[in-house]
Amino acid sequence: MIDDDVLSTHLQELRRGTVVLASLLLLRRPGYGYALLEELARTGLAVDANTLYPLLRRLEKQGLLTSEWSTDEPRPRKFYRTSVDGAALAETLRREWADLSTAFATLEDGS
Amino acid sequence: MIDDDVLSTHLQELRRGTVVLASLLLLRRPGYGYALLEELARTGLAVDANTLYPLLRRLEKQGLLTSEWSTDEPRPRKFYRTSVDGAALAETLRREWADLSTAFATLEDGS
Repeated sequence: MIDDDVLSTHLQELRRGTVVLASLLLLRRPGYGYALLEELARTGLAVDANTLYPLLRRLEKQGLLTSEWSTDEPRPRKFYRTSVDGAALAETLRREWADLSTAFATLEDGS
Repeated sequence: MIDDDVLSTHLQELRRGTVVLASLLLLRRPGYGYALLEELARTGLAVDANTLYPLLRRLEKQGLLTSEWSTDEPRPRKFYRTSVDGAALAETLRREWADLSTAFATLEDGS
């Protein structure tokens, strides 16, 4: 039997970094934090708010997201959107993911 | 332009955890550290020796690898092999990877 902590650590390590790619892809259409959280969960990439919100601020600081306050709604909300650099990074990460998938497919064959 | 450090951090985060899966798959056939290092590089999953060797010891401690010294060769070498639990974890990680890939494919479509 695999220890539960061991299992969850290995799963977390595999998932880490995928939230960045997913957020950059989803925020090609402007969205605010809570809506993104729900979209991620719906896509099977559930993430904690305490992980996502600081990540969004970090991506903005890195110039990968831009932000804008919307006052159209009853409560002002900060909308994030993927920047040109962010879209370029998403493309790089997507290619890296595809390369890793190819590598795994080779290993699966037992070669 | 994306800062080089930013790019490499995001790439590293995406790759993290993939070395565990790749090692568990490759070590279905017993192998020693240096040979594994070369196999990983050949498969496109290059990793540093300073990362891999402690990882192998950690996986052994977690019961995911077994080890055995071989004295057949001029210099004794420690051979690692994926345990039954290790094979089960590899299967779980492989399924998780497939699920994440499905999630990304959905996002790519812009849905």
